[in-house]
Amino acid sequence: VSLEKYSIGVDLGGTNLRIAAYAGGTEFLESIAVPTRMAEGRDAVVDDMASAIRRFRETYSASASLAGVGIGTPGPLELPIGRLRKLPNFPGWDGFNLREAIESRIGMSVFLAKDANLAAFAESKLGQGKALGIDSMYMLTLGTGVGNGIVLDGKIFDGMSGMAGEGGHATVWPNGPRCGCGNHGCVEVFASATGVQRMARELIAGGNAPGLTTLADSKPAFSARDVADLASSGDSGARRVFENVGEALGITLAAMIDILNLPLYVIGGGMTNAWDLFSPRLFAELESRSYVYFLNNGNIDTSGYRSRMTHVVPAQLGSEAGLLGACLLPLVEAPA
Amino acid sequence: VSLEKYSIGVDLGGTNLRIAAYAGGTEFLESIAVPTRMAEGRDAVVDDMASAIRRFRETYSASASLAGVGIGTPGPLELPIGRLRKLPNFPGWDGFNLREAIESRIGMSVFLAKDANLAAFAESKLGQGKALGIDSMYMLTLGTGVGNGIVLDGKIFDGMSGMAGEGGHATVWPNGPRCGCGNHGCVEVFASATGVQRMARELIAGGNAPGLTTLADSKPAFSARDVADLASSGDSGARRVFENVGEALGITLAAMIDILNLPLYVIGGGMTNAWDLFSPRLFAELESRSYVYFLNNGNIDTSGYRSRMTHVVPAQLGSEAGLLGACLLPLVEAPA
Repeated sequence: VSLEKYSIGVDLGGTNLRIAAYAGGTEFLESIAVPTRMAEGRDAVVDDMASAIRRFRETYSASASLAGVGIGTPGPLELPIGRLRKLPNFPGWDGFNLREAIESRIGMSVFLAKDANLAAFAESKLGQGKALGIDSMYMLTLGTGVGNGIVLDGKIFDGMSGMAGEGGHATVWPNGPRCGCGNHGCVEVFASATGVQRMARELIAGGNAPGLTTLADSKPAFSARDVADLASSGDSGARRVFENVGEALGITLAAMIDILNLPLYVIGGGMTNAWDLFSPRLFAELESRSYVYFLNNGNIDTSGYRSRMTHVVPAQLGSEAGLLGACLLPLVEAPA
Repeated sequence: VSLEKYSIGVDLGGTNLRIAAYAGGTEFLESIAVPTRMAEGRDAVVDDMASAIRRFRETYSASASLAGVGIGTPGPLELPIGRLRKLPNFPGWDGFNLREAIESRIGMSVFLAKDANLAAFAESKLGQGKALGIDSMYMLTLGTGVGNGIVLDGKIFDGMSGMAGEGGHATVWPNGPRCGCGNHGCVEVFASATGVQRMARELIAGGNAPGLTTLADSKPAFSARDVADLASSGDSGARRVFENVGEALGITLAAMIDILNLPLYVIGGGMTNAWDLFSPRLFAELESRSYVYFLNNGNIDTSGYRSRMTHVVPAQLGSEAGLLGACLLPLVEAPA
C-alpha cells in the first residue's frame, strides 16, 4: 500500500489497551489489543502504550508520514494539561499526568481526549453525522456505564477543563439509587448494562417477574444482553426494564434538546442492540417533555416554513468508535 | 454629547415594550417603556416598535452613526428566519415572522434574539462575565417563568434553529406538577415566582404552615416577594419553599456543570433577591450530585496543579439586562 498520511490511535480501557494505525476510509491498517496491565501499575501500562506506538511507527514510517497520535482515556480527564482524575477502574491513577508520561516516552506531542468524546467524534465524522450531513451532536454511549460526548461544528466540545460530557451523571430521578459518582438517580443507574441488571434483580426481588426469575435461576450472573433477549421474546418483566431505560434516556434527552437545540442526538454503545426495546418509551418522553422537540418535529407548521428536525437515532459505528475517533483526531486537527 | 456609534435596543414583553438608545458604558442614552398593545393585535405592536425606532434614529443620527438595532423577544424564536413560535402570552402570534415585519417597516436589517439570551449576553459582557474575566456562561433568569441563555466564547449559543436555552423546562422531578410547556416537574414549576406561590399554597393546604397561612389570610394574592420576606424573618414554612427552589436549581445546574463544564453559571431575574434563601441548598445539591463540580471546586489536588473553579453566582445586572443585551448585540456583532 502506498500511503501519504496515517495516524496512530490508542484506546486506554480498564481491561484492554487497543492500538490502531489508520489511513482513511473506515478500515484500520492494523489494530491490536493487549490486556491493560493494571496490577503492575501505571508506568507499566504507559510503557506498553509507548512501545506499541513505536512499533507502529517503525512499520509505517517508510511508506507514509505520521499525522499524529491520538489517545483516548476514560474520563474525567483534565485538559489541556492531560491529567487523569479519579477514574473508577484505575486505582492509583488520580492526578497522573498521562500527557507528560506518554510524550516523554515517545518524543512527540499527542492528541488526548476522553473516550466517549472520541466515540462521538467518530460518529460525527464517519457515522450518523456523515450520513445525515450534520456536524453538531450529543451522544450517549450505553455500556457498563453511560458515557457522553458532545461535538459542536465538527469539533469535540471539551468545556473549560476537558470535563464536559459527563451527561451520564445528569440526574433523572433525584431520589433514585446511588451511583458510583456519588449522585443519586443519574442516567447511568438506569441506562447502563449495570443498571439493567440491577433493575432486573429488583423486579425478581419484588416477586412478580416469573420470566426474569427463571433466567436468574438458570444463570445467576445474567447479563443485560440476557435481559434484552428475554424482553425480545415478549417477557413483560424484562420489557419493563427496558421501558425504564427508555424513560431515563427520554427525560435527559428532552432536557438536552430544550437546552442545546442540536440537530442530532445519538445513542451508542453495546446497549444500542436493544434500541427497539427502549426507543418507543424514549420518544414518548421526548414528545411529552420537550417543547423544542415538539416545535421542531411536530407537524404544526402554519405558514409554509418547515422547522428543522431534531434527529434522535442509534449509532452506526460499533464498539471500535472510540478507537476510530482516536485515529481520526490527529488527521482532522493536526496542522497541514 | 458627541458620539461616534450608538445602537437601539428593543425588548418586546407581554406587558411592556421597552426601547433604549445606547452608546457604551452601562448607562442608556435614553430609554422608554410603553404598554404592549396586545389587544390591538401584532401589527399595532410592531407599528409601535417601528415608530419608536424611527424616533430614536432621528434624535441621534445627527451626532452619531447607528451601529444597528437589536430586538429581544420571548422564546421560542426561530432563527435565522426570525419567526415567533407559540409564545405563552402572545395569542395569535404563533408563526409570525417578526423579522420581516419590523425590517420592512424600518428599512434596515435588525439583530433578533430571545430575551433570556440577551440577558445572558449582557451579563457576560458587563456583569459577572466581565467581573470574572470569563466569556462562557449558563444563565437562568428567575421571573414569572424561568428563562435560560447560554453564551459560549462571547457569543450567544442559538442551537440549530434559535431555540437553545429552554433550560427552564428541563425536568427535575419527573412526576412533578404540570407546567404550561406540557412537561411535568420542570425547573420552572419550582424556581419561578409562580412556582414559589404554588408551593406556598400547597404548604398552606397541608395545614402545617401557620406563618404562610397568616400571610394568605391578610393578603390572598400574596407574591413570591412576600414569601421571601416571610422566609427572611425566619418562618419555617416560607423557608421550606426556598429550600425547594434551591434544590430544583441545584439538580439542574449539577447536570449542566457535568455536561458543559463551563466556568460560570449565573442566576438572574427578580428572584435573585432571594439568593441567600435558596443558594445554601443549591450548593449542597451541587456538592452531592456533580462530579465535575466536586473535582473542580473540591480541594483535592495532589500534585500542585489546581483545577479551574466552576463559578456559581447571582447576576450583577438587574431587570434591564435583556434590554441592555438588545443594545449590546449590534455593537458587538455588527461588521465594523
